[in-house]
Amino acid sequence: MSKMLEEIRQQPEALAKTLKQEWKGIEKLKQQFEAYPPRMIILAARGTSDNAAQFGRYLLELLTGIPVSLSAPSIYTLYGAKLDLEDTLVVGISQSGESTDTNIVLERAKECGAFTLGITNEPDSTLAKLGHATILVRAGKEKSVAATKTYTGQLLAMYMLAYALGGKLALKDLEKLPELAAKALKLEPQVAAMAGRYRFMQHAVVVGRGLNYANAFEFALKMMETCYVIAERFSSADLLHGPIAMVDPHFPAFVFAPSGVTWNPISELLARVDATTHETLLVTDKSNKAAFDSKRRAFRIPVAIPELLTPIPYIIPGQLFAGYLATEKGLNPDQPRSLTKVTQNL
Amino acid sequence: MSKMLEEIRQQPEALAKTLKQEWKGIEKLKQQFEAYPPRMIILAARGTSDNAAQFGRYLLELLTGIPVSLSAPSIYTLYGAKLDLEDTLVVGISQSGESTDTNIVLERAKECGAFTLGITNEPDSTLAKLGHATILVRAGKEKSVAATKTYTGQLLAMYMLAYALGGKLALKDLEKLPELAAKALKLEPQVAAMAGRYRFMQHAVVVGRGLNYANAFEFALKMMETCYVIAERFSSADLLHGPIAMVDPHFPAFVFAPSGVTWNPISELLARVDATTHETLLVTDKSNKAAFDSKRRAFRIPVAIPELLTPIPYIIPGQLFAGYLATEKGLNPDQPRSLTKVTQNL
Repeated sequence: MSKMLEEIRQQPEALAKTLKQEWKGIEKLKQQFEAYPPRMIILAARGTSDNAAQFGRYLLELLTGIPVSLSAPSIYTLYGAKLDLEDTLVVGISQSGESTDTNIVLERAKECGAFTLGITNEPDSTLAKLGHATILVRAGKEKSVAATKTYTGQLLAMYMLAYALGGKLALKDLEKLPELAAKALKLEPQVAAMAGRYRFMQHAVVVGRGLNYANAFEFALKMMETCYVIAERFSSADLLHGPIAMVDPHFPAFVFAPSGVTWNPISELLARVDATTHETLLVTDKSNKAAFDSKRRAFRIPVAIPELLTPIPYIIPGQLFAGYLATEKGLNPDQPRSLTKVTQNL
Repeated sequence: MSKMLEEIRQQPEALAKTLKQEWKGIEKLKQQFEAYPPRMIILAARGTSDNAAQFGRYLLELLTGIPVSLSAPSIYTLYGAKLDLEDTLVVGISQSGESTDTNIVLERAKECGAFTLGITNEPDSTLAKLGHATILVRAGKEKSVAATKTYTGQLLAMYMLAYALGGKLALKDLEKLPELAAKALKLEPQVAAMAGRYRFMQHAVVVGRGLNYANAFEFALKMMETCYVIAERFSSADLLHGPIAMVDPHFPAFVFAPSGVTWNPISELLARVDATTHETLLVTDKSNKAAFDSKRRAFRIPVAIPELLTPIPYIIPGQLFAGYLATEKGLNPDQPRSLTKVTQNL
């Protein structure tokens, strides 16, 4: 069995552990933010961690009303710009804690007056010691080059941060997440059986909206890294602004379809995609009756999930799919060509 | 001749006209910002205009030191979130001025206390009348579905906005842009001759960094829209965090290669790409001697351009290339399948 698959299966446990061991620190952070509420949040990350940041951008704006920006690291690392970061929270996210440019952003942000926070899986890393505060993802060492359990751990860290910033969210909501992740893992035999169909797939487009927009990037990244599938990723809105022109019958669409406010635009997008390719595969759950009961190909998580809590369970069938598809294609998902675990660049 | 090609050629004139007719308003805006300096900037747009926003995000942070965020419109349009936007400048960018979600962001931002600015090509559009202030792109009606002259017009508007916000930039710098665009257009015969080589290209990756990161998105979007080429777009840093695994010999890399701080990481990326595909095509100019004189395939703009002013002239060979490649592939670049000129969605 690949390390990737092992690590995918460890997620319910890793989430529960992170929640348990970090909550005390989160309550302390909450007091800190009550005393000095930030007026703006900047998230800095690369690769999979940047997808977690993309999720954080939606979640934090929705739950806290504080505007969020995704950092462009080269502003600091290449151009050496100095921003006015008073009353600003700057968050660096990195699995290894050794991503050079993420760390430089945090250092510079400190000099520019920001309050800084590091989120990492490695307690002894540079990042863990760099910020004014740290949230540790307690997922255990991640051995596969393809990040899985650290991604969902980073998503959880974003929920915890939203709570610390006064977001309407209770510990008991977050305590549901390990169980929801376990429910998603129940799809493994079905995902494994489905992977064969895509043995010769060369392209795909992954679509998500709102809270699941980041998952579209992450699912696509997993397929690019481990299966060498050329996987485009778009929000339903952006896809209609141009790129839909290239979608043809050899271009299946993988679509995150939770219940809630994104379902309307997503179902309109599905109608448009049907005109060019009939090949869609949804990720959905019991709360979205229209998608769950439809005849479309789908990974159906057998429980009703409020949209706010979908991103962690929803990425799991995507991770499993990438892992099994790599095997179908005769590839080793733990050793993608041209990649190393820690990427250091400016 | 396609309308797209006609409109590409109109760019020097359109840029000169925009600069001339809008400058008085920009000086007024500058006074306004001196009296009430914004502490944060949010840019809202879709499609090509979102690529212009991506450029603005780098330019404005570099020249003004004010943190910039790219808006996620669904936060407002779908989730109805209320952000704290006091002392915030919110900019909506849309060629037609009728992009539903961009307009909704501006309306909501007003309600949340922001100062709002619309940038559009259409003086009678909803967007032109919506904001506290407006910058008009004076490019004349854009008839081709593939936006070209309005994109460079929007980039120019970003420079003008940076000036209004106190950025170190003089009118005489910007007055060079129409001439630089004219110099880039001189490459047309060479671009037309080069297009044939790519007749059967199905995939590509476009790479840009810093100020030319947005151009990577825009060049890729032009190839997706008009040539149905599956065009990935990345910064050199992000490409190394995973997606480089999928690059193979059938995957040419189009790389923006100006002189300045991005050249070092870009040249390192070129060495990495050489290991997987020897097929690269640079966009460069006389000021980057290493790239200009190299034996690589390249569009060489025959003049030295400071990095700050490269984005407008650099996208022009990309626009021309997409237009000529569409013709080589037997497609009409003015009428991409599945697309209409005004995209309205939530």
